[in-house]
Amino acid sequence: MFVLVNLKAYPCDPVEVATAAADVSDDSGVRVAVAPQAAQISAVAETGVETWAQHVSAVEHGSHTGSTLAEAAADAGAVGTLLNHSENRLKLADIDGALDAADRADLETIVCANNPAQIGAAAALDPDGVAVEPPELIGTGTPVSKADPDIVTGAVDAAARVNGDVDVLCGAGISTGEDLVSASDLGASGVLLASGVAKADDPRAALEDLVEPLL
Amino acid sequence: MFVLVNLKAYPCDPVEVATAAADVSDDSGVRVAVAPQAAQISAVAETGVETWAQHVSAVEHGSHTGSTLAEAAADAGAVGTLLNHSENRLKLADIDGALDAADRADLETIVCANNPAQIGAAAALDPDGVAVEPPELIGTGTPVSKADPDIVTGAVDAAARVNGDVDVLCGAGISTGEDLVSASDLGASGVLLASGVAKADDPRAALEDLVEPLL
Amino acid sequence: MFVLVNLKAYPCDPVEVATAAADVSDDSGVRVAVAPQAAQISAVAETGVETWAQHVSAVEHGSHTGSTLAEAAADAGAVGTLLNHSENRLKLADIDGALDAADRADLETIVCANNPAQIGAAAALDPDGVAVEPPELIGTGTPVSKADPDIVTGAVDAAARVNGDVDVLCGAGISTGEDLVSASDLGASGVLLASGVAKADDPRAALEDLVEPLL
Amino acid sequence: MFVLVNLKAYPCDPVEVATAAADVSDDSGVRVAVAPQAAQISAVAETGVETWAQHVSAVEHGSHTGSTLAEAAADAGAVGTLLNHSENRLKLADIDGALDAADRADLETIVCANNPAQIGAAAALDPDGVAVEPPELIGTGTPVSKADPDIVTGAVDAAARVNGDVDVLCGAGISTGEDLVSASDLGASGVLLASGVAKADDPRAALEDLVEPLL
Repeated sequence: MFVLVNLKAYPCDPVEVATAAADVSDDSGVRVAVAPQAAQISAVAETGVETWAQHVSAVEHGSHTGSTLAEAAADAGAVGTLLNHSENRLKLADIDGALDAADRADLETIVCANNPAQIGAAAALDPDGVAVEPPELIGTGTPVSKADPDIVTGAVDAAARVNGDVDVLCGAGISTGEDLVSASDLGASGVLLASGVAKADDPRAALEDLVEPLL
Repeated sequence: MFVLVNLKAYPCDPVEVATAAADVSDDSGVRVAVAPQAAQISAVAETGVETWAQHVSAVEHGSHTGSTLAEAAADAGAVGTLLNHSENRLKLADIDGALDAADRADLETIVCANNPAQIGAAAALDPDGVAVEPPELIGTGTPVSKADPDIVTGAVDAAARVNGDVDVLCGAGISTGEDLVSASDLGASGVLLASGVAKADDPRAALEDLVEPLL
Repeated sequence: MFVLVNLKAYPCDPVEVATAAADVSDDSGVRVAVAPQAAQISAVAETGVETWAQHVSAVEHGSHTGSTLAEAAADAGAVGTLLNHSENRLKLADIDGALDAADRADLETIVCANNPAQIGAAAALDPDGVAVEPPELIGTGTPVSKADPDIVTGAVDAAARVNGDVDVLCGAGISTGEDLVSASDLGASGVLLASGVAKADDPRAALEDLVEPLL
Repeated sequence: MFVLVNLKAYPCDPVEVATAAADVSDDSGVRVAVAPQAAQISAVAETGVETWAQHVSAVEHGSHTGSTLAEAAADAGAVGTLLNHSENRLKLADIDGALDAADRADLETIVCANNPAQIGAAAALDPDGVAVEPPELIGTGTPVSKADPDIVTGAVDAAARVNGDVDVLCGAGISTGEDLVSASDLGASGVLLASGVAKADDPRAALEDLVEPLL
């Protein structure tokens, strides 16, 4: 299982969460990555944790102000990027363009989507992975795997029908090891989570709890 | 073959083009539809031509100012809608939402896209049809079927792999009967065109020329 | 006082509201206009009511799909347009461009904004009017003139400082004649309202109640 | 005069340009700042140069993925931010929101705009400065101060009418010391430039040439 922690624009200390994530990953052998804002990528990457961007722009080098160039994210230390998170929905053409950009910069890619139909569409664009996150469950603490397991299995099926090579992660409301196990049982190969770790009083303990069933 | 004429925001008389399209369709038996701006849908529909919207919003009835509600387009006389035209690119989630909206209002749907990968993504959302239009050929008079036939066959293949029920149209640079035939030969079941008819000195003659090889 | 009724995408019958508005305006001598969706402009204008667009695009005639060209709105019967409603926020450059477009098509213009600072900015672009609508009060039934009178006087002052020629309307939560009077007392020369009329059981009675204090 | 170098998404080495800018600023006493992409802010700030963001988002701490939080830009070392660059046009409400965000994080602000009317609108929102950049001159090497001096004086006048406290910079096509002097003569208190330095074979020499007339 792949655990990807999205730090969003939370008032957490990104380096503290990243250090905890690096340690928990080393100790447990579970793959854990952290996705900070662009301005924090280099500081997070310096901790040694696997670092992801939250977004890269569908642009190449050139006259683009205020963009996040895939190459700049990679130079700062990112090895992957989320795209089309429900808090940053992209045009279909820009998901395609950002996947090309990520490819150029050797970034692994996960495209988020709301439901199985959109997961199928995302999978058709050939990212490395897709993540299904029903917007109504984000930040609730109610895991999608419990509240709406059919969305997860529907996403796994939709992706498989379109593109057998794409991994399916599951997001929204994930916070415990039990959530991780049920996501895995439903066919997901990873989880995308945020507040459950980034807003936890003790991010390290939250991560340890999360990966515990995988040990 | 289905011929869909997009009037864009051209300074043509939409009723004149619509009347010509209705007549040519009646005389030839070829399905010809016209897509005017929202404010012109009712005037165009009154000519009796098959009328399409250029876009509908991913919203339901409610507090939305400046949107194009699918139900309002249908009430005005539209029976179908384009979505995600390269001049009006939509977020993936909004293409999905607009397809739901069109469905509610019984509008037929064609989702446009730039290339085979995006055509596959669009097809995964289950519209009635998709239209491949390489942006660099739009308005050139150089038909995609001649300039880049692989894009058309690639689109037909990409759609078929993802969703066998979806029709594939081809757009960009189509203006003659010959273009129509070569689109058909490449597997397209229709064409999307604009300036070739809407900016023609004699739209009726342009349409007659277009459908001639089908008679 | 100018009363502008925004029909949004409400499930009301636009022609019924428009007919009532035309009658109430004729009977009372109060200026009342109705702003339907683009697809309904021609049907609303046929009732004889003063008809406004909810939005026009910052484009000229040309290759624009899914836009609302100012000229098309005017041809369908609109004599004015809202811009930058809080449900359809525009880029600063596009407000400027849409004002040019409206000018070309002889449409009167009202630019909406959230607060006095943005009202000043809108006034600097030289529309005919501006409308202050705190988003948190829209659709509440609590009139801005009662909940936050300082926003209205602040808007009147901000507009006057920047551009003495611009009218100030006040929106959000307006539904009764009393609200109209207090808006006027605060310096507004009109009101922008929506649900109070468009979602009323009896739109005609709602409008009669609204203009009653002005008789 | 304030010289602000926008590195856009150019394939230059941001640290090399920043080091040169820091040195030239120290040697000449002219204020020179550099605006890299968000992912490069910390590396650029470490050179000691005055560092600006190219953009910050109109958000506070919270659930925002892929945003550029003003606080994160400041933590990484930025002391100011551009907003509404013509390559990143913002909604009016978001310029206002981003100014609030910058204020919270103690970032100095410059709002870009196309023409005097939009400069007046930007000035009404009370940033520290505004920058007029006719889009058609960006990247041309033809300075706005020569090609269209009336736009610069018009911008200075428009800003002064609305808000006497706001500085006016001038951008687009600036590359030489002569351009800087003529911008100053037209009333600008700074220049915004990009390719003239960032794409120069020798950025240090380009900056030295630029500030030479001020020594």
